[in-house]
Amino acid sequence: MSLLSLDSIRHVLARLEETIIFGIIERARFKRNEVIYKPDGVGRGLKGQSLVGFLLRECEKSHAKVRRYTSPDEYPFFARLPASILPIVRLESPLRPNAINVNAQVREIYETRMVPLVCEPGDDGQWGSSAVNDVNLLQAISKRVHYGKFVAEAKRRTQPKRLAALAAAGDEAGILAAVTDVSVETRVVARVRAKAATLAQEFGPRPGRYKVKPAIVAEIYRRWIIPLNKEVQVRYLLACHDGDGRG
Amino acid sequence: MSLLSLDSIRHVLARLEETIIFGIIERARFKRNEVIYKPDGVGRGLKGQSLVGFLLRECEKSHAKVRRYTSPDEYPFFARLPASILPIVRLESPLRPNAINVNAQVREIYETRMVPLVCEPGDDGQWGSSAVNDVNLLQAISKRVHYGKFVAEAKRRTQPKRLAALAAAGDEAGILAAVTDVSVETRVVARVRAKAATLAQEFGPRPGRYKVKPAIVAEIYRRWIIPLNKEVQVRYLLACHDGDGRG
Repeated sequence: MSLLSLDSIRHVLARLEETIIFGIIERARFKRNEVIYKPDGVGRGLKGQSLVGFLLRECEKSHAKVRRYTSPDEYPFFARLPASILPIVRLESPLRPNAINVNAQVREIYETRMVPLVCEPGDDGQWGSSAVNDVNLLQAISKRVHYGKFVAEAKRRTQPKRLAALAAAGDEAGILAAVTDVSVETRVVARVRAKAATLAQEFGPRPGRYKVKPAIVAEIYRRWIIPLNKEVQVRYLLACHDGDGRG
Repeated sequence: MSLLSLDSIRHVLARLEETIIFGIIERARFKRNEVIYKPDGVGRGLKGQSLVGFLLRECEKSHAKVRRYTSPDEYPFFARLPASILPIVRLESPLRPNAINVNAQVREIYETRMVPLVCEPGDDGQWGSSAVNDVNLLQAISKRVHYGKFVAEAKRRTQPKRLAALAAAGDEAGILAAVTDVSVETRVVARVRAKAATLAQEFGPRPGRYKVKPAIVAEIYRRWIIPLNKEVQVRYLLACHDGDGRG
């Protein structure tokens, strides 16, 4: 049950902020390198995939073989991954069974909105390094976003009647309002910005400058990560709402 | 030629420090989880491999397919990787042809010495996350260590006669002395420690504490990363020494 304590959830989410900030800083070393997001952009050998798509899928294939996606806090970008070659351990999940996965949106927003915000325009030829960093960062953002399921389940248990009524009525806007806490969101964005101001600072010859502007990291949270997390919460609450709590 | 300017080399190495520090901080989130380094430690499905070995090899296989290891600053841990499925671009390399690869040592030292220094003892069940972080960190350390080839080539060009004479005499100790600059090494270790003091600080409820002690990061550089880098330099200078500079 500790997975659903608000303390435990807050700790995981706060720690993931640093992972995401590290990932953004690492990606910002390289230019946009748009060619790595285009199907066949780096060569026909990839059979219609982009370089990032290819590496992400290869990564997920190998991780699926060691049962990454049996964990209730890990969601793949690709379907039809290979079976695990390790014995499956049925992890005790506090979540209701559900098939919610917003990674298509995560990837679309990442490639078309976040990268242009984080990276300088142009192509520096560092395609492989950029794509490897993209894979790591996409996986961290996906984890952060899908953690909304744990947040939603915790809320469902603390205010079961109110949320069940909204869900039974299919009231998406009502659920979104119920899971929104503007003061918490403001605090998260401010905290992320403060962390980035520490972690993204340039050392050495350019003190006082940043590898990525803290305002950009804050903006990524405000515009995309927090809203996508809430979207996961809303979808979860809509899907898992039946009266006896077994939705 | 700019790849061999000391400014360019210093910039790459300094920037890699942050990547390595990020990697150490990320790995330190988890306990040692010794089982992930043992052959078949997480299950027989891996056919004698450890979890880290399996994931590292799978990662290198997919990266080899997109020609990571044709780059003169990338060296794999495994042999017999698949061929590239992209057209090979012959990158202009400023290095002499050589087959130097110290990744067996890097991996041995990483698994048996660095991890116990960085992580708390015990097993927290976070095997997959620990192993994924290991793969990223091993690759960053390998890159840093093998960058010694660029350092050595730059030195070979600035003091060709002295180094060629030592190499022709097979004087390893002499070459090691020639590539050692204690004041530079001291400065690097101090800088790494200062960066870690910034990057590894705990935010939130435990200010003034560290995710990893800066002294530990400094120690990893002092005891292993710098010496392995110099070992690469020595091996390179021994192997590439003939009189006309075409060793």
